[in-house]
Amino acid sequence: MSKLKAFKKIALVGKPGSNAAQETIDVLCRQINDLGLSVYLPKSDIYDFPSGQAEKIPMESIGETCDLAIVVGGDGSMLKTARDLIDSRVPLLGINRGHLGFLTDIRPTEVDSRVPPILEGQYTLENRFLLDAEVFRNDKSIGGSNAVNDVVLYPGEIARMIQFELYMDQKFVYSQRSDGLIVSTPTGSTAYSLSGGGPILAPQTDTIVLVPMCPHTLTSRPIAVNKEKVIDIVIADANPHNPQLSCDGQVIISLRPGDRIRIKQYPIEMCLVHPLDYDYFEVLRTKLGWGQKLGTSLK
Amino acid sequence: MSKLKAFKKIALVGKPGSNAAQETIDVLCRQINDLGLSVYLPKSDIYDFPSGQAEKIPMESIGETCDLAIVVGGDGSMLKTARDLIDSRVPLLGINRGHLGFLTDIRPTEVDSRVPPILEGQYTLENRFLLDAEVFRNDKSIGGSNAVNDVVLYPGEIARMIQFELYMDQKFVYSQRSDGLIVSTPTGSTAYSLSGGGPILAPQTDTIVLVPMCPHTLTSRPIAVNKEKVIDIVIADANPHNPQLSCDGQVIISLRPGDRIRIKQYPIEMCLVHPLDYDYFEVLRTKLGWGQKLGTSLK
Amino acid sequence: MSKLKAFKKIALVGKPGSNAAQETIDVLCRQINDLGLSVYLPKSDIYDFPSGQAEKIPMESIGETCDLAIVVGGDGSMLKTARDLIDSRVPLLGINRGHLGFLTDIRPTEVDSRVPPILEGQYTLENRFLLDAEVFRNDKSIGGSNAVNDVVLYPGEIARMIQFELYMDQKFVYSQRSDGLIVSTPTGSTAYSLSGGGPILAPQTDTIVLVPMCPHTLTSRPIAVNKEKVIDIVIADANPHNPQLSCDGQVIISLRPGDRIRIKQYPIEMCLVHPLDYDYFEVLRTKLGWGQKLGTSLK
Amino acid sequence: MSKLKAFKKIALVGKPGSNAAQETIDVLCRQINDLGLSVYLPKSDIYDFPSGQAEKIPMESIGETCDLAIVVGGDGSMLKTARDLIDSRVPLLGINRGHLGFLTDIRPTEVDSRVPPILEGQYTLENRFLLDAEVFRNDKSIGGSNAVNDVVLYPGEIARMIQFELYMDQKFVYSQRSDGLIVSTPTGSTAYSLSGGGPILAPQTDTIVLVPMCPHTLTSRPIAVNKEKVIDIVIADANPHNPQLSCDGQVIISLRPGDRIRIKQYPIEMCLVHPLDYDYFEVLRTKLGWGQKLGTSLK
Repeated sequence: MSKLKAFKKIALVGKPGSNAAQETIDVLCRQINDLGLSVYLPKSDIYDFPSGQAEKIPMESIGETCDLAIVVGGDGSMLKTARDLIDSRVPLLGINRGHLGFLTDIRPTEVDSRVPPILEGQYTLENRFLLDAEVFRNDKSIGGSNAVNDVVLYPGEIARMIQFELYMDQKFVYSQRSDGLIVSTPTGSTAYSLSGGGPILAPQTDTIVLVPMCPHTLTSRPIAVNKEKVIDIVIADANPHNPQLSCDGQVIISLRPGDRIRIKQYPIEMCLVHPLDYDYFEVLRTKLGWGQKLGTSLK
Repeated sequence: MSKLKAFKKIALVGKPGSNAAQETIDVLCRQINDLGLSVYLPKSDIYDFPSGQAEKIPMESIGETCDLAIVVGGDGSMLKTARDLIDSRVPLLGINRGHLGFLTDIRPTEVDSRVPPILEGQYTLENRFLLDAEVFRNDKSIGGSNAVNDVVLYPGEIARMIQFELYMDQKFVYSQRSDGLIVSTPTGSTAYSLSGGGPILAPQTDTIVLVPMCPHTLTSRPIAVNKEKVIDIVIADANPHNPQLSCDGQVIISLRPGDRIRIKQYPIEMCLVHPLDYDYFEVLRTKLGWGQKLGTSLK
Repeated sequence: MSKLKAFKKIALVGKPGSNAAQETIDVLCRQINDLGLSVYLPKSDIYDFPSGQAEKIPMESIGETCDLAIVVGGDGSMLKTARDLIDSRVPLLGINRGHLGFLTDIRPTEVDSRVPPILEGQYTLENRFLLDAEVFRNDKSIGGSNAVNDVVLYPGEIARMIQFELYMDQKFVYSQRSDGLIVSTPTGSTAYSLSGGGPILAPQTDTIVLVPMCPHTLTSRPIAVNKEKVIDIVIADANPHNPQLSCDGQVIISLRPGDRIRIKQYPIEMCLVHPLDYDYFEVLRTKLGWGQKLGTSLK
Repeated sequence: MSKLKAFKKIALVGKPGSNAAQETIDVLCRQINDLGLSVYLPKSDIYDFPSGQAEKIPMESIGETCDLAIVVGGDGSMLKTARDLIDSRVPLLGINRGHLGFLTDIRPTEVDSRVPPILEGQYTLENRFLLDAEVFRNDKSIGGSNAVNDVVLYPGEIARMIQFELYMDQKFVYSQRSDGLIVSTPTGSTAYSLSGGGPILAPQTDTIVLVPMCPHTLTSRPIAVNKEKVIDIVIADANPHNPQLSCDGQVIISLRPGDRIRIKQYPIEMCLVHPLDYDYFEVLRTKLGWGQKLGTSLK
């Protein structure tokens, strides 16, 4: 694998209020200073940096100013930062706190050995597509968000099913009564969608999966469709409550009967930076406890 | 939708030994004769045609001689004919006997009204990819087949699990003990794979799904991957029995411990002919009993 | 089957606000009047009875006054009435409106032919056990309810998992992060629990099933336990939101971190009246579309 | 917990051909000799005992001669021994080799510390019911077996579904096309049945669960019924192959179209001996990786 472009101006984005993230950002800041590179921090972050030099800039400026953003936190921090920075196309590197994450490849204890080679150009890039959800009421857009993992339709009250219609490219697919619907990217397929009974979609799959939650009809099953499909969910007029829409579990939009939710591929993809030895299936195996090699080797 | 090429030379392929298929082939033969077009029948078929004119030719010649093959039977007949004729790229039209099929769009009672428009050019074409499975023993190929629906790994004895390793593009994915593995195309995703707990893959999804059967580990879940992936299944040396491989449930290959099964996309796609009003989701809705429109309409 | 006790004093309980229920109650009232028997109506019901004679009494008095309560509505009406009347041990007969119900055996069109034989003693009785849920905060009971179908733990906010511990007879079973937990009777096993992936428990099964909803851990599976078990769910102190508890989807109790929910068998069972030809598996077959007899008969 | 009867005459039954089992049996033999108690070995076992004193007796005599049988091996050895010794009602203690088992509570390394207290009366007893399967052809019994875990119906050929009818207490339940049916005890519910999608049945549940394998109809779901039910499976006359029946995966019976399999509770229960600190849910938690206590304690 040939060497890629080295990084010069590095943003550090931490999970707000996390002491553990603060510690790792401290270490990273000194490390990057020592390499003679520039560190930028989002102004909104509360971190102080007694031991390193860093410039505080608005979150909105990180994209145009920096050529790499290192996110310190769990997959949740990564999702938020990815949505915030997607339009700038700045690549993202994730350093997890606590558990191994699907989006955060590097452990805090590995920062010393694994981050400098990446800054020097020893890395791979991987694109992941996002979803774009927009809600229409009487044909007017009333809000929306992009989503790295999933767009999820929820009931407005507990113990109440939602009734809705589903369309793909304007073609009617089904009406359904259920606790909701998970619309997931491959990136999200190992998160909530998996808990709901959806399949794992490997990262390079150009596929969106729709997973019904507790459907009233037992034959309602996960459906995977091409990411170019335009998906419309129409909330039934007869729906007695106001359902809700969640993007990555972080952005919530209140719905009304008759609303239409249009979900399609977001026009810009996010770009992940991985260490050279990154192996998606190894992460899966570790997190899901799958079987290791048997001694039989592939010839 | 603009008019496509009309068909002139039509092969009729029936389910062997089926009186119902014979009747429909009789009707079709007369109908095509009446339109002044030519009918061809595979020599192997036992059908007589007292009431129509048809030329008997070897199955191998149908591809080069005909510009359309009409298959009369269930999805099983369609699978077999599709595998037989795939290399000739002759398009296929399915007429089901009995139940509505996923691959056979037209009911016998609709032959009069729906077949002539198709022959005149009122149709749509749809490509579906196939799988290609080849078995290697000590690095030498010992057999293989293409598959429209699925390639399935089965135990050699009942009540015995298989142990195997899975690789994608030579990268190790997992080892597994289970009753076997279903590797399915989108076309096969509504067949055996669905019974085994797999997701539905809409036809234009460039995706293969791998569904473990009764896996020993509860975290083993269906995985969907891009159809460009090369999949290798290596039967564990320690396997006490000789597992078996099935392509579309119709071609069976006996395996031994240490064998490697390579599964990849078949280089040629099959081409389905549909009536203009064909609607994949309507077929799904009907066969799975999904909810109809609610009166809420998509605006 | 020998003749059982005839019914003399019959309560009619309808789904509030349903014209269809009103019509059927009208018919039943006249029918019972014609047989020379007494009709009682709950005072709270808004129904007028121009065409029949009935005495309005408080809901609380129905138990001591009547020897049968006929419920007209869906399974929802039946659940509510069963909880209201359980302590009086008055048997219940269900007449459904619209869809065939699991608890409502008789269709409105069958009232004329099927109700009179039941009133004369041609029926069977079936007992079903209920659950009793009570919530303890700092060891003090803050509320509770019985439940015919299920007790369900829900998150306090959408897109947020609950963390809780489960105990059986004071023995720790597991801690879990999930969207909640369904605790279901056999009666409820064909309702929400089935949508959530639970098994069907035949009515005479002395078993409660616990079905996790979208559990974070893939190995979390439905567990069935003896109905004598005392089940405790302890909401984790660290839970950031206030989960909610639902009994039959109709009684809602707000919870706080640290609360303990004790679920056990309710001391009194409800008593269902069925026509002599009632067949539980026929209802299941019809509602789930299971296969009919094959012509092979049991010898 | 008060002290139970001490054991005096102990049979040691090992997994045939296992060196690891031989070692543990050696250790046990010396240990029991040292306690002044008698050791018996089944004559069929090939183990030599240079270091201990033991009497070889036929397997059939173990029941009447011994008051405890210690089984050394995996759950498979335990299943076989339990079926062999069930009629003698001799209690069984399991010592696993390798992985922790559901039926084998004690690890080989714990033999020194945990076996002597049990022999002295520090233990608990637990009864588990078995199934009894018998096959009838033209109303004549042609064979059968009891089963600790499960009775499983399998196809006679790979890639072929079975068609059969199911009856409970002579009442028709459904006809089904599938890869087969698992009929499992609570003991078997954590074995093959769980892989097939069945629920976990806690040991004291008086329930049998029927789990369809890859059913053709998506609404076919696991059903749990009271263990007193008599279950009949009738193989369809139209079945093109000869299905097979397995008891515990160890006894195989060949079937023919038209055969009837009657499954009911076996009249004698097996009796397991556990150390005093045995905890079923702890075994489940460990084997399934469920969540540990949270620090929230049950008050």
